[in-house]
Amino acid sequence: MSEWAAPSFLPVLQSTIEVLAVLAFALSGIASGLRAGMDLIGVCFVAGVTALGGGTLRDLLLDRRPFFWIEQDHLLWMIIGLCVLASLVLRRSHAEVTERSIQIPDAVGLGLFSALGTQIALAEGSSVIVAILMGVFSSTLGGVLRDTFCNVIPKAFSDHQPYILLAVFGSGIVIGLDALGWPAWMGLLAGVLVTTSARVLVILYRWSIPQWRP
Amino acid sequence: MSEWAAPSFLPVLQSTIEVLAVLAFALSGIASGLRAGMDLIGVCFVAGVTALGGGTLRDLLLDRRPFFWIEQDHLLWMIIGLCVLASLVLRRSHAEVTERSIQIPDAVGLGLFSALGTQIALAEGSSVIVAILMGVFSSTLGGVLRDTFCNVIPKAFSDHQPYILLAVFGSGIVIGLDALGWPAWMGLLAGVLVTTSARVLVILYRWSIPQWRP
Amino acid sequence: MSEWAAPSFLPVLQSTIEVLAVLAFALSGIASGLRAGMDLIGVCFVAGVTALGGGTLRDLLLDRRPFFWIEQDHLLWMIIGLCVLASLVLRRSHAEVTERSIQIPDAVGLGLFSALGTQIALAEGSSVIVAILMGVFSSTLGGVLRDTFCNVIPKAFSDHQPYILLAVFGSGIVIGLDALGWPAWMGLLAGVLVTTSARVLVILYRWSIPQWRP
Repeated sequence: MSEWAAPSFLPVLQSTIEVLAVLAFALSGIASGLRAGMDLIGVCFVAGVTALGGGTLRDLLLDRRPFFWIEQDHLLWMIIGLCVLASLVLRRSHAEVTERSIQIPDAVGLGLFSALGTQIALAEGSSVIVAILMGVFSSTLGGVLRDTFCNVIPKAFSDHQPYILLAVFGSGIVIGLDALGWPAWMGLLAGVLVTTSARVLVILYRWSIPQWRP
Repeated sequence: MSEWAAPSFLPVLQSTIEVLAVLAFALSGIASGLRAGMDLIGVCFVAGVTALGGGTLRDLLLDRRPFFWIEQDHLLWMIIGLCVLASLVLRRSHAEVTERSIQIPDAVGLGLFSALGTQIALAEGSSVIVAILMGVFSSTLGGVLRDTFCNVIPKAFSDHQPYILLAVFGSGIVIGLDALGWPAWMGLLAGVLVTTSARVLVILYRWSIPQWRP
Repeated sequence: MSEWAAPSFLPVLQSTIEVLAVLAFALSGIASGLRAGMDLIGVCFVAGVTALGGGTLRDLLLDRRPFFWIEQDHLLWMIIGLCVLASLVLRRSHAEVTERSIQIPDAVGLGLFSALGTQIALAEGSSVIVAILMGVFSSTLGGVLRDTFCNVIPKAFSDHQPYILLAVFGSGIVIGLDALGWPAWMGLLAGVLVTTSARVLVILYRWSIPQWRP
């Protein structure tokens, strides 16, 4: 990539990551709402809260206005479209909505939002600890709200598998590569890839972290 | 109504709707807190959160400051007065606090806040989808918080009666009449009347919407 | 204290109160998270939310930016340090984490944050009722979130011991002394001392307030 292209590449990458993260979390919200026996409106609501909750808190805490989904309201239409589409597909196929159909999109969203939130915080001049927190909040709050509304104890706190820890790790990669002077887009991609892959492996192989006090 | 009166009529109507909506939701919060066996402070708290929660989120998301109840703090006194009054009346009359004494004021608040939230969002220049969301959030979040604090699964998600759907419908009326060029106060009144009447009918006749997947 | 010292003494007192309140609530969050069987990351999360939740809502509602813990990010490091320290101490001593190890730090935080929140609201020109609300919110929301995340019905609403009532009372002292023209630091200290002592007495002697309707 030539030097002059860089200024326009990063925003495109950020937008792409945002769209993908919103869609991934929306999917996990749809699956969770369906498993809880909600109607279409309820499923749309949970999908929206899961997809937009974390980023909204990030924008709120960093004082960025307007909120990302108020400015880019195509995200809202995409979520609604996805809900309707999922409804049609599921009615036809009579497919089972498994626990894994919540977890895998959630893992994708976790990696995307943790790297993006950290990178946005760094660009706003936040300190290291605040940038990590923004990565963690924007990637985990959606899932916590999803579980709360579906009346499940948030898995981020209750299972003993690495989740918030991986978001911290992904944020650390973005911050570390930034400190080393790498371009922002490389840090973003590295953070996304490492966090999402690690989370998928955790789910597939049921890795767990030891209890605090055995 | 003559032409020159219009600029002053709309704000008065908006304030009236706001006061009525706050009182209606406060009543439903009082009834819900009483049924959950809370003390006077707990009842005041739930009444306040139910009455002010939705509008606060609306102001937050639309970036309107100060929040409506910080600017008009007579609303807070009204809620406290209503709690004390309800306490005195109930002690004397030994009346039963029924499920319906939560639902009917809730229906009134639903219609008032959904139309008002949509109209405020339109006036701030929001897009159609954002205006609908503001109508939905400001009219349903209070009830969701009320149910959560009283340790009940939010009825907006769990029963299969139209609720959020009616808020969407009321918002649509306000937006539709606005697009047709009707004055804002007509859209407001139409939205309120249709939504509240529909919700009352839903409660009285126990109408339900079909399950997403039977 | 001589006249010229006053301008610099109040901010120092406010910062000290803030640090102590954050630490006290963090301790109560750690104890609560441990009792709920969380891992280190979960405990850190609950400690952080308990310690920072109330003050964040206060800053949000009063429109103070940046949030207090984003500006003073040493608070975040202190919370993390406290979690690690508590982990090491508890592993060595095999001490029991009792209900009281949640309640006593909570009582300290209640007094500190209710007086501080009220005083900050007064300094921002809020009305009396809004200043009381800010005292109540900033001192009670942390505990409510802590109990919610640990899947316990918030004790502030469910037990019939004075809690929110004491926060109201502490706010009233700060407002009353301010109205009498006392210097702000005196009101702050008086509010803290009265509220925390009263809450500790309530816990030790199991005082309760009568049910709303027997």
